[in-house]
Amino acid sequence: MQSRYYTIHEHPQGLPSRELFALEQQELPALAEGEVRVRNTWLSVDPYMRGRMDGVTTYIEPFTLGAPLEGAATGEVMESRDARFSPGDKVRHMAGWRDVAQLPADQVEPLPEFDVPEQAYLGVLGMPGTTAWVGLNVIADMQPGDNVLVSAASGAVGSLAVQLAKAQGGTVVGIAGDQHKLDWLESKGVKAVSYKGKNAAELSAALKDACPEGFDVYYENVGGDCLEAALNNLRVGARIAVCGMIARYNDDAPAAGPGNLAMLLVRRARMQGFIVFDHWQHHADFLKEFGPRVASGEIDYRETVEEGLERLPDAFLALFSGANQGKMLVKL
Amino acid sequence: MQSRYYTIHEHPQGLPSRELFALEQQELPALAEGEVRVRNTWLSVDPYMRGRMDGVTTYIEPFTLGAPLEGAATGEVMESRDARFSPGDKVRHMAGWRDVAQLPADQVEPLPEFDVPEQAYLGVLGMPGTTAWVGLNVIADMQPGDNVLVSAASGAVGSLAVQLAKAQGGTVVGIAGDQHKLDWLESKGVKAVSYKGKNAAELSAALKDACPEGFDVYYENVGGDCLEAALNNLRVGARIAVCGMIARYNDDAPAAGPGNLAMLLVRRARMQGFIVFDHWQHHADFLKEFGPRVASGEIDYRETVEEGLERLPDAFLALFSGANQGKMLVKL
Repeated sequence: MQSRYYTIHEHPQGLPSRELFALEQQELPALAEGEVRVRNTWLSVDPYMRGRMDGVTTYIEPFTLGAPLEGAATGEVMESRDARFSPGDKVRHMAGWRDVAQLPADQVEPLPEFDVPEQAYLGVLGMPGTTAWVGLNVIADMQPGDNVLVSAASGAVGSLAVQLAKAQGGTVVGIAGDQHKLDWLESKGVKAVSYKGKNAAELSAALKDACPEGFDVYYENVGGDCLEAALNNLRVGARIAVCGMIARYNDDAPAAGPGNLAMLLVRRARMQGFIVFDHWQHHADFLKEFGPRVASGEIDYRETVEEGLERLPDAFLALFSGANQGKMLVKL
Repeated sequence: MQSRYYTIHEHPQGLPSRELFALEQQELPALAEGEVRVRNTWLSVDPYMRGRMDGVTTYIEPFTLGAPLEGAATGEVMESRDARFSPGDKVRHMAGWRDVAQLPADQVEPLPEFDVPEQAYLGVLGMPGTTAWVGLNVIADMQPGDNVLVSAASGAVGSLAVQLAKAQGGTVVGIAGDQHKLDWLESKGVKAVSYKGKNAAELSAALKDACPEGFDVYYENVGGDCLEAALNNLRVGARIAVCGMIARYNDDAPAAGPGNLAMLLVRRARMQGFIVFDHWQHHADFLKEFGPRVASGEIDYRETVEEGLERLPDAFLALFSGANQGKMLVKL
């Protein structure tokens, strides 16, 4: 059985080129006791993967040069040598970036049985959804009545954070770029602010217009000018949940940070970085609460879908130009 | 009765000039019911006062142009029209920057009766001491065994933070400049790192040498390169208590911030600004715990003393060149 997979043979500098990603093929060994073989159906691409392409350990091990890249995927079990799985089972695992995965059964989980499309378990009911929930509730300790700001507010995580914050009784402002993203935010009752064509001072003024009282919570996905503008608009006691800083992931050299960090002092604010995997114990509760709301259509989640293994690197790279609305996925 | 006081007639840009401070004089009105008149004996100058010289409200109201400046002071009651005070009582209050203060009795507190010099209530047993304690314990949640980094480690707050952290079972590294400050730190069992002649990368490397495992707690008094170097040396789950950013207080325009804020994400770290006055409910407990330890000589607190009302602005300005070791005070 052949498996086609992507790998990289060098660590990229800056924004990776399309040529970085090599599509290779290997003959899979016979299935060992305790393993399952899965035909992947949906592959996830996520901004955090960029960090794994550098040769250094951050909060997660780097990708191994020449080995298959990894990432979340769903698929169907083809063959199993573990009692927990049978051919035809729908599953989720981390052996993405390939068409056929073969891995130990304890690294595979059956998909829950909510009435949702299976790729929802890579987005709204997967890592991005859990990230939105943990950031808002565990890290930023959002309270009803809070003014909440979300950057990359129509992205995979942001689009869920804004809806959660609304549902939890917040007044929500979202930062995004393209007009259709701004329109979508407004349709959800979120005040939309465009970052396009604005420097940090102008974005700061636009946020002040949108919410003159300032923000109790800032859900940070971007960094750079968004962070600087947000810092200027904090209320006393504000909490910043730092989920990501996508504006920085492809920097060759560190860009200067915001000149107004002293606002943390002035506003007695807290800024905290987090990684959802540290808080995965909340995932089961999150699923129980969120699964029915997604199935009922109460949560509006968007997907941007590319088709075919050949398009996988393009889908990944598109994350950094803001081309996706909601979760970026590749359908095989 | 005449009172001589300092005022400012314009908001300074950058580091204030000596000429900004006008020594003026007024005839005090007769003492009203409920007021006390105090001959000040010791005046405090503190970095936070710089913020009050700008015309904007930050976490505290700005000074009023033309009115007496304010700050912590100790003194002796000359005359009282309140039953709680009698002539000769030793007191502490916020009507500093002057020789004779006249104010409502409920803005005056009697000095506690520990066997310490009265000016200790402006430093080690006053706002700076409480700030060190709150930052370390309430904000940074220091635990025994933590690796603790303190910037401005021989200053009024830092010199107490390092001793507290040691006493609480921490491994402590302090950043300072002059050799006698570094020597003092080493004499306290604190690993001393000089910032002088080092850029952020070099300071970062020096901190790594001093504590290869990285820091669980960073007690931040400085900002700038110290913050950038500290961010590079955080352990997973680190807490940064932002007490001050003196490196920035005299900036005309915001200087760029650290380019490595994403380390908050990588290290899942928390950075929190605080103002001791928000936590003043801990002051009584702090005094009860700390008063005897200061009286017994267990806590080594330093003072830098200028004499005479004429030297008050010089003492204040010297804070920004690092001329003080420990608490900067003016004796009248």
